[in-house]
Amino acid sequence: MSASAPRLEIVALEGVPDVSEGDDLCGIVLDAYDASGLAPEAGDILVVAQKIVSKAEGRLVDLATVSPSPRAEKLARETEKDARVIELILSEADEVVRTRPGLIVVRHRLGYVLANAGIDASNVEAGGEESVLLLPENPDRSAASLRAEIARRGGLAPAPGVIVSDSLGRAWRIGTIGTALGGAGVTALADLRGNPDMFGRPLMVSEVGLADQIASAAAIVMGEANERRPIALVRGLAAASEGARAADLIRPRELDLFG
Amino acid sequence: MSASAPRLEIVALEGVPDVSEGDDLCGIVLDAYDASGLAPEAGDILVVAQKIVSKAEGRLVDLATVSPSPRAEKLARETEKDARVIELILSEADEVVRTRPGLIVVRHRLGYVLANAGIDASNVEAGGEESVLLLPENPDRSAASLRAEIARRGGLAPAPGVIVSDSLGRAWRIGTIGTALGGAGVTALADLRGNPDMFGRPLMVSEVGLADQIASAAAIVMGEANERRPIALVRGLAAASEGARAADLIRPRELDLFG
Repeated sequence: MSASAPRLEIVALEGVPDVSEGDDLCGIVLDAYDASGLAPEAGDILVVAQKIVSKAEGRLVDLATVSPSPRAEKLARETEKDARVIELILSEADEVVRTRPGLIVVRHRLGYVLANAGIDASNVEAGGEESVLLLPENPDRSAASLRAEIARRGGLAPAPGVIVSDSLGRAWRIGTIGTALGGAGVTALADLRGNPDMFGRPLMVSEVGLADQIASAAAIVMGEANERRPIALVRGLAAASEGARAADLIRPRELDLFG
Repeated sequence: MSASAPRLEIVALEGVPDVSEGDDLCGIVLDAYDASGLAPEAGDILVVAQKIVSKAEGRLVDLATVSPSPRAEKLARETEKDARVIELILSEADEVVRTRPGLIVVRHRLGYVLANAGIDASNVEAGGEESVLLLPENPDRSAASLRAEIARRGGLAPAPGVIVSDSLGRAWRIGTIGTALGGAGVTALADLRGNPDMFGRPLMVSEVGLADQIASAAAIVMGEANERRPIALVRGLAAASEGARAADLIRPRELDLFG
């Protein structure tokens, strides 16, 4: 397309293998660049699915090892879910926000409000049907460490942005959308307060969830089902920010009117 | 970038003028292609900011013409907002969902749950500081009619996808993100239920808010402040769907646990 207009390119990297505990994610990212006929460039943003980060970090749990508490047993009956999964959800949650049959929405220990504490039973191999995958222990930290390693081993300066993404539901809309659970080197929340609008008035829509928008854009090419495309590369965006962390996108409990 | 990998290009079209009531939006879109050195192509998706659709449709309201009801006056005191704006918010809303000083969240008559019923006082000219802009009367209809006209006058077959987007807040996360208020010719909700995951199990994350993800991707290049970039072109996505409408993305009242 035209070279002059503001433009973004988003590509799903190819050649990403199944990921298991202890795998070298940085090596997988750099190999995926290669397999896609691309080389790392300054300004690159990599969006990496939570799922492969969690697998590499060993967050797979064999349900046979889980003993549900009485509270989990009760909640399992109410929600018609596996009590062992509920036990894990509770262990990952600070608070149960809403339940109904088939659904449990919690406030995760890291602040995210989401279904099932982000625990996923799809696309999880090792251990067969009886394993589930927890979110990374600290997605901002995972993003920061992957970022530093890609910069070092990929010879990339400045370092790329990295977002650890997941597909989350919304309170009032149907369908999941790509969301930034963790991030490093990418502006998470773009604060436009004080910027004038086109007619010189202070802008009313003043904070933009930029990293979430990037995660949603990446989710379009990553897909959800049986495509092996858990890494997307975003180019063309000047969104580098050293201090950025996706935790900034979480609405604090005291400002939450809907929890 | 590599031609082989799944890839999306998103560009903000150039040369979009200020829009006023009665303006020819289709002509503006086709001129913006030209100004950006581009020609319409089969498979194009156009994301058009709600703001210019509303302006073209004459949804600007002069606040001097609004007489607040006692209910609006009371709510204005509670929320510390202009009673005339509150009157318009109430006229656009089916239900007030939450209020606090500085904030009023409603269920819009079209089902969207959002702050201020989507009424915007920034980037609104004509009438000066005393005018505000309502959402289009029916964004799905606006998208469908713009789509048909672009297809006809732009000689584009099949017709492009069109999304009418806005930046909306979220219950549990800070920052607005691009969201599809209306759409035509683009799959709004991608239903993956029944699709197997990589290991053959039914996929758990099963409905994806695709049109919202596209609107978020577009919002990255459109910007929020004083850039005149209210139209984005998305290429590379096979998301055409004749029956699609963004209303499908609205969680029905009876399934809303948080309203």
